[in-house]
Amino acid sequence: MRTKTPEQKERILTAASGLFGTQRFHEVRMDDIAVVAEMGKGTLYRYFRDKEELYFAVLARSSELFLGRVTTAVVEVEGVRAQLEALVSSIIGYFDEHPHLLDLIQRAELESALGKEFPWQHTRTELLRLVGDLFEQARVHGEASIRHPDVAALMLLGGLRTVIRLGEKPRPRGLARRIIDNFLSGADALAKAPRAQALLR
Amino acid sequence: MRTKTPEQKERILTAASGLFGTQRFHEVRMDDIAVVAEMGKGTLYRYFRDKEELYFAVLARSSELFLGRVTTAVVEVEGVRAQLEALVSSIIGYFDEHPHLLDLIQRAELESALGKEFPWQHTRTELLRLVGDLFEQARVHGEASIRHPDVAALMLLGGLRTVIRLGEKPRPRGLARRIIDNFLSGADALAKAPRAQALLR
Repeated sequence: MRTKTPEQKERILTAASGLFGTQRFHEVRMDDIAVVAEMGKGTLYRYFRDKEELYFAVLARSSELFLGRVTTAVVEVEGVRAQLEALVSSIIGYFDEHPHLLDLIQRAELESALGKEFPWQHTRTELLRLVGDLFEQARVHGEASIRHPDVAALMLLGGLRTVIRLGEKPRPRGLARRIIDNFLSGADALAKAPRAQALLR
Repeated sequence: MRTKTPEQKERILTAASGLFGTQRFHEVRMDDIAVVAEMGKGTLYRYFRDKEELYFAVLARSSELFLGRVTTAVVEVEGVRAQLEALVSSIIGYFDEHPHLLDLIQRAELESALGKEFPWQHTRTELLRLVGDLFEQARVHGEASIRHPDVAALMLLGGLRTVIRLGEKPRPRGLARRIIDNFLSGADALAKAPRAQALLR
């Protein structure tokens, strides 16, 4: 009986990742994945029963890589504004590099309604936690005081999803800065922030 | 040959709408729709070839009803803040009343990637246009000056989608107000808005 190796599995995942991330789900064939991974289709099937199982594994792996990228980007800078900008940049950047990833997540999410595990769930939870932690640190250090932090985190991450999907391409310069400026200081340039209002009285 | 009537079609759509909106797609059976619509399954199939076609029709109809509801809510109030709050309330309200609508939209969106028409596209475009118009009117009347309006509109509507999907339920009181406060004045209570900053100098 032939053994399975982590290296071979990794080669399959890398090949599948590239194909699922850049082509539509129904266009990706197990044959193509085997060709890119440079192995026979029989070997491929020793690791993954079918395309469905492979694509769940791809999503779980992508999920970890994505979270690693975002977390690294955030810890590399200081101050809540820079950290939120780094978060936004790295999220948009990752999805722009994997143009079909959102579709894959959406597909998996629909299937999770049928009782399947949702491989992106962990990332979603961790991302919300990361944003919540940034808000909390900013509050402790007196850098920012985020009102309604739970709703604010959902609005920020959900808004990003739609900017990634429907926003202008190529991305306008300074997009992350615009998003965070609007997020922290408000989209309305005429609005007075509560503290400034108090100072004006 | 039996004739088709608009009344009968409407009865089917209403029945299907109720079932698709409150049950998962795979749980809804043509038999159940026929029972709720109080007609034979044969009659049902004279109007819609299969469940797929019927659900596209349901989505197209839901799309119109939704847009009507939101537009009405917005024109009933005055001032950009009240209008945006009405927009947010009516969007969240509609989706909360149709708990599986987002899944249906998502499913249709994935299928549109396979070349099918996306029945929610018109609503999406119109909603973005409505928000854009509100921003523009507010600017003309000196009520608000929305920075980066295109990105701001995507962030607002995309954020709402995620609040609808993942936000706390039952919805906290004043949710729409919280969202619009953060949107217009910024999530950071310590941030100084540009105009107030100028006044403070």
